[in-house]
Amino acid sequence: MIVSGLLTSVGINFALCIIFFVLYSVLRKQPGNYKVYAPRLLAEGKTQRPSRFKLYRLLPTAGWLKSAWQPSEEQLLSYSGLDAVVFMRIIIFSFKIFTVAGFIGIFILIPVNCSGNQLQDIDFANITNNSLELFSISNVNNGSNSLWIHLGAVYVLTIIACYLLYTEYKYISSKRIAYFCASELQPHQFTILVSNIPVPSGSSIGNSVENFFTEYHPVTYLSNVVVHRKSKIWTLTNAAKDLYRMIINFRKVPTKPQFIRDGFLEHEVNLINHHEKKLDDQEANVRTDDSREEVRAAFVSFKSRYGAAIALHMLQANNPTQWLTEQAPEPQDVYWPFFSTTFMGRWISKLTVIGSCMLVTVLFLIPVFIVQGLTNLAQLETYFPFLKGILTMSIVSQVITGYLPNLILQLSLKIVPPIMKIISSAQGYISISEIERSACHKVIWFTVWNVFFANVLSASAFRLLFIFLEVKDIPSKLAVYVPSQASFFIAYVVTLGWTSTSSELFRVVPFIGSLLCKPFARNSDDDVKVPSFPYHQDIPKILFFGLLGFTYFFLAPLIIPFLLGYFSLAYIIYRNQLLNVYAPKYESGGKFWPTVHDTTIFSLVLMQFIAFGIFTLKKLPYATTVTIPLPVLTLLFNEYCRKRFLPIFMAYSTETLLKKDREDQHHPAMPRFLEQLRAAYQDPALVPANYNANHDRLVEPLITTAEIRG
Amino acid sequence: MIVSGLLTSVGINFALCIIFFVLYSVLRKQPGNYKVYAPRLLAEGKTQRPSRFKLYRLLPTAGWLKSAWQPSEEQLLSYSGLDAVVFMRIIIFSFKIFTVAGFIGIFILIPVNCSGNQLQDIDFANITNNSLELFSISNVNNGSNSLWIHLGAVYVLTIIACYLLYTEYKYISSKRIAYFCASELQPHQFTILVSNIPVPSGSSIGNSVENFFTEYHPVTYLSNVVVHRKSKIWTLTNAAKDLYRMIINFRKVPTKPQFIRDGFLEHEVNLINHHEKKLDDQEANVRTDDSREEVRAAFVSFKSRYGAAIALHMLQANNPTQWLTEQAPEPQDVYWPFFSTTFMGRWISKLTVIGSCMLVTVLFLIPVFIVQGLTNLAQLETYFPFLKGILTMSIVSQVITGYLPNLILQLSLKIVPPIMKIISSAQGYISISEIERSACHKVIWFTVWNVFFANVLSASAFRLLFIFLEVKDIPSKLAVYVPSQASFFIAYVVTLGWTSTSSELFRVVPFIGSLLCKPFARNSDDDVKVPSFPYHQDIPKILFFGLLGFTYFFLAPLIIPFLLGYFSLAYIIYRNQLLNVYAPKYESGGKFWPTVHDTTIFSLVLMQFIAFGIFTLKKLPYATTVTIPLPVLTLLFNEYCRKRFLPIFMAYSTETLLKKDREDQHHPAMPRFLEQLRAAYQDPALVPANYNANHDRLVEPLITTAEIRG
Repeated sequence: MIVSGLLTSVGINFALCIIFFVLYSVLRKQPGNYKVYAPRLLAEGKTQRPSRFKLYRLLPTAGWLKSAWQPSEEQLLSYSGLDAVVFMRIIIFSFKIFTVAGFIGIFILIPVNCSGNQLQDIDFANITNNSLELFSISNVNNGSNSLWIHLGAVYVLTIIACYLLYTEYKYISSKRIAYFCASELQPHQFTILVSNIPVPSGSSIGNSVENFFTEYHPVTYLSNVVVHRKSKIWTLTNAAKDLYRMIINFRKVPTKPQFIRDGFLEHEVNLINHHEKKLDDQEANVRTDDSREEVRAAFVSFKSRYGAAIALHMLQANNPTQWLTEQAPEPQDVYWPFFSTTFMGRWISKLTVIGSCMLVTVLFLIPVFIVQGLTNLAQLETYFPFLKGILTMSIVSQVITGYLPNLILQLSLKIVPPIMKIISSAQGYISISEIERSACHKVIWFTVWNVFFANVLSASAFRLLFIFLEVKDIPSKLAVYVPSQASFFIAYVVTLGWTSTSSELFRVVPFIGSLLCKPFARNSDDDVKVPSFPYHQDIPKILFFGLLGFTYFFLAPLIIPFLLGYFSLAYIIYRNQLLNVYAPKYESGGKFWPTVHDTTIFSLVLMQFIAFGIFTLKKLPYATTVTIPLPVLTLLFNEYCRKRFLPIFMAYSTETLLKKDREDQHHPAMPRFLEQLRAAYQDPALVPANYNANHDRLVEPLITTAEIRG
Repeated sequence: MIVSGLLTSVGINFALCIIFFVLYSVLRKQPGNYKVYAPRLLAEGKTQRPSRFKLYRLLPTAGWLKSAWQPSEEQLLSYSGLDAVVFMRIIIFSFKIFTVAGFIGIFILIPVNCSGNQLQDIDFANITNNSLELFSISNVNNGSNSLWIHLGAVYVLTIIACYLLYTEYKYISSKRIAYFCASELQPHQFTILVSNIPVPSGSSIGNSVENFFTEYHPVTYLSNVVVHRKSKIWTLTNAAKDLYRMIINFRKVPTKPQFIRDGFLEHEVNLINHHEKKLDDQEANVRTDDSREEVRAAFVSFKSRYGAAIALHMLQANNPTQWLTEQAPEPQDVYWPFFSTTFMGRWISKLTVIGSCMLVTVLFLIPVFIVQGLTNLAQLETYFPFLKGILTMSIVSQVITGYLPNLILQLSLKIVPPIMKIISSAQGYISISEIERSACHKVIWFTVWNVFFANVLSASAFRLLFIFLEVKDIPSKLAVYVPSQASFFIAYVVTLGWTSTSSELFRVVPFIGSLLCKPFARNSDDDVKVPSFPYHQDIPKILFFGLLGFTYFFLAPLIIPFLLGYFSLAYIIYRNQLLNVYAPKYESGGKFWPTVHDTTIFSLVLMQFIAFGIFTLKKLPYATTVTIPLPVLTLLFNEYCRKRFLPIFMAYSTETLLKKDREDQHHPAMPRFLEQLRAAYQDPALVPANYNANHDRLVEPLITTAEIRG
């Protein structure tokens, strides 16, 4: 990429950011946009529509920056849960480490790089086009002793990164335990999911579960709910549920018009009566439907958290494929459609998932190829000679090489997280949180493979595979190609970092959606849908920028300031969105952090491998040797962290569980909670069968009838 | 290797086997050799020395074959434990699978191989020297359709092997559970080892353990024993123990002379008094010694097996590196010296162990190089021209190429298991059984790497590493080199299989040892040392023969009859030795089987990889493609087995534990057992402190004073 192309890209993106900021600060104050920019506040009734127009609503102001900045971490924790805090910690961690890296890079490495003259010797004619490389390690003379400074920088950054990783892991572990200790009585803490239940002939699944747990967990066993397979009943139930919600809604807000026009006749019908009649029909359908079928799985509840944990961690039966146990998700987090597959089907699903991931990887080649073609104008001219006239225009070539490739990448990358989520949901996870965590993993590795390696090595996903089979040559190959892609990735940071994050603030798609829907929608604040935070989309993005930072830090430190800009933007914007827009759908208790840790370790080791390759290439054999202990030590550090912290994210300790159980033993709400626990994991497909008796359970399982009706 | 060399090797080894058999059947009947050939029977008092000489003692008879053959598996189980049964099952499994393989190989593949004429086309001059290859796959014409028969054979053998592996795993799992259910009250079932115990300042380790377990396991906790670091006291204690044993010995057998000569003076001293005085001195030393130091580890005993299992499997503390739990070994199986290292030292030990293994691998190059030199006479002649005269003699060259290389390999391989055991004991295992299991692993991979791959690829261990870095080329390289080494490995089977196993029967080293010691030893039956079975030495041997069988089965089926001969020999000889010679030192409950399973899966996949390479080489691309699903399916099968059976070998299920606990709840011996449990894991270094009170505990911890003294 030529330098002017890069500058164009930075310019375009910077302008876009400013526009997004200004637009946001004006539009957010318009009552009509509250649904887009503060759905959560609206849903919680914290925002009141202003009674009359004021001028300041049309001026761009920065007050939102202050209110996004102010809340402390504790406030964020109590408002958005631990997952949101962990998410913000990723940004803070990245900011910290790259501040150090930036300091080293700008004040130490860049002067050293500039003092070399390797590039002038070789390629003086092309120097204007590659002037960015003057600041990179490519300009340091082969065999020069100043490369030892780079080695030192790699060592220092590794040590600081490990130190920060350790303190962060420790901090989040303690937060996780503290969060559990401070939590209310929650059904999922007392419940496990048991699958592959063997059923003796002549017995039902429910009886089998009942017998097994009264036999082997007589003291702690409370109740069980057998899971049912998805069937016709699901569709019926969903329709009934919608109707039911509508009725509840109308009951709550009696001021609303309760009449609709019936057909062409101007005949007004009582709306509630109308819907209740429809609901009764649906219920009759549900009751007569017998297509539902029991699955050999059940939610089993216990009288104490420790009792549930024992049943979870101990091998239950002599046949380890039976009575499989796993922690139950929160009731609202259960992914019910999963139970429509048989449990033996998990196996095949997993294989299918691998296949699908490969397919997505292959299909993604198309945009990658286009991007690669665009960054090499010469190549493009060879393929399409008729473009020559246009391409020679300076501004066109700058936009094409600088901005367009990253825009295409950005748009194609946008669709990857949803696809990965769909793939993950076929993999047999029983909760939405697990699906998103799995999708998060997939997106990370997809990005690393298809954006980093494919772009760096200018190779297709398949050729990449062959490159990686030749293990020996990887470091030197990376050392050759990674530095040459520095300007491409700087452009990537400004496009996918700056602009994409600002557009997150502006919420482009929901905003356009609301504009289009406005003429048709009843202007009601009650049916506001509060979105949940797409962790599987944003965590991989931040981690990938971290990977770019680590790998380019000693090769081309010029990327670091752009990254720091991105992290600052991300910090304030995501805080704002977490406070105003998103409501947590589930609480995994910070389970995303181990993924973050592992990915950062991967980035560190990748950096060290590239350093190994660079020193070989630059003919400094001693430095190459001195690099070898680095990955070894980093991996040992990782191993230690896995031992020290990972178990905390897998299970709560006896210490914590018993302490919590003993605290709650004499809790006044305990008997009532245990009573409600029996019904907490009622399958939605089962509820309509005794629908009239339990109308209220559909909306919020643990609230009594009196509380809603009253 | 030339064919006549192979024949010489077979001849020599066959003759050696016959000699060993004849010698054994005569020598075993001489009362002087009972210590060598039936130490276990002698120690258990089942063999009486015959009162007078009979002629039949000098005739070689085969009666021992019958008595080795007769006992049923149940008898073997009750006599030698489950580990011995599992060991015999390995031989039976191998015999079964290679009977099938032999049938396919001899009656189907060899006729097909002989009908080809690939070799005659190429190398007619050398045919006499390579006539064995006529029977191998090398003789099948390139692109010939008869190669499909080989592919079919590979498929059939894979399917049969998987079926047998499955039934065997299932059988042994059920045996393991049955063995546990039938077991007596045993201290290790009720005990766990807790390490990395945090000690609050001002408290002792014992108090800390007491507080923690009374707090978090109040119902099931029984007692704890803190472990001590090895120190000067160890040496003293050991000396005292020897003396003590002597005294007990003398007390038991009052008919023995109780006097010894004191120096040159013919002054007889009462032996018991003499030793008791020495013992008192030692005790005084022990009591005044204060170099012993508590280690932050303790054996914690529980009132029930289920209670111990819960403490074992649950995460105990919020810091997962503290209160680490593992299953306690049997008291006699504890490897006390281990506790001399600190627990943080485990880390460094592991790294050291990796280093040591690499060193052993490198040092082993020397014999491998010699062996390779000897099998290539021409090469030897180039290096040492003065040998030319001798080497041209037919008999010399036959012995050198046929017998000598394998003898050298055999002798060098003999020392590998003891070395690996020493290395494993530095790795931080707390029991001898775990050390032997780990050594078993190491020996298996060492043999596969240094004997199979190094010989096949004729490469040093280091060059091997580089060969394996080029992943793509491995199958074709193996396909080229493996068939050419067929005759070498046939010679290997007869030398290391036949002769080495027969020499196990004859017990060469102990026999020579007893011959040498006879003039000096008092002829007492009481201090017979009963050896324990060296599983870490013999399991790898059998598994390696299995690997040879699988890889050569379709390449050069001629090896199979030799293997079947080996397995028959091994079956009868090891049975005999288990019944007469070895006594179990510990009982791991069949934990060796997962290793056997994994190694067999590895052999299968290796066979499939070689098949892949062969079909590529023989220009049959369709067959190559059809081979690909094989390793995938085999690995999926392995994954299923890991899920289905492996957990059974890791932990007993709630079902089993509770059933066993409930059975024993009202066992009359229970209160006494629990009382003795408190002292079962007393550190040997601690005992002398209250030595006089507990003299008897040294010999057998769970027997009361009355039982010995009486």
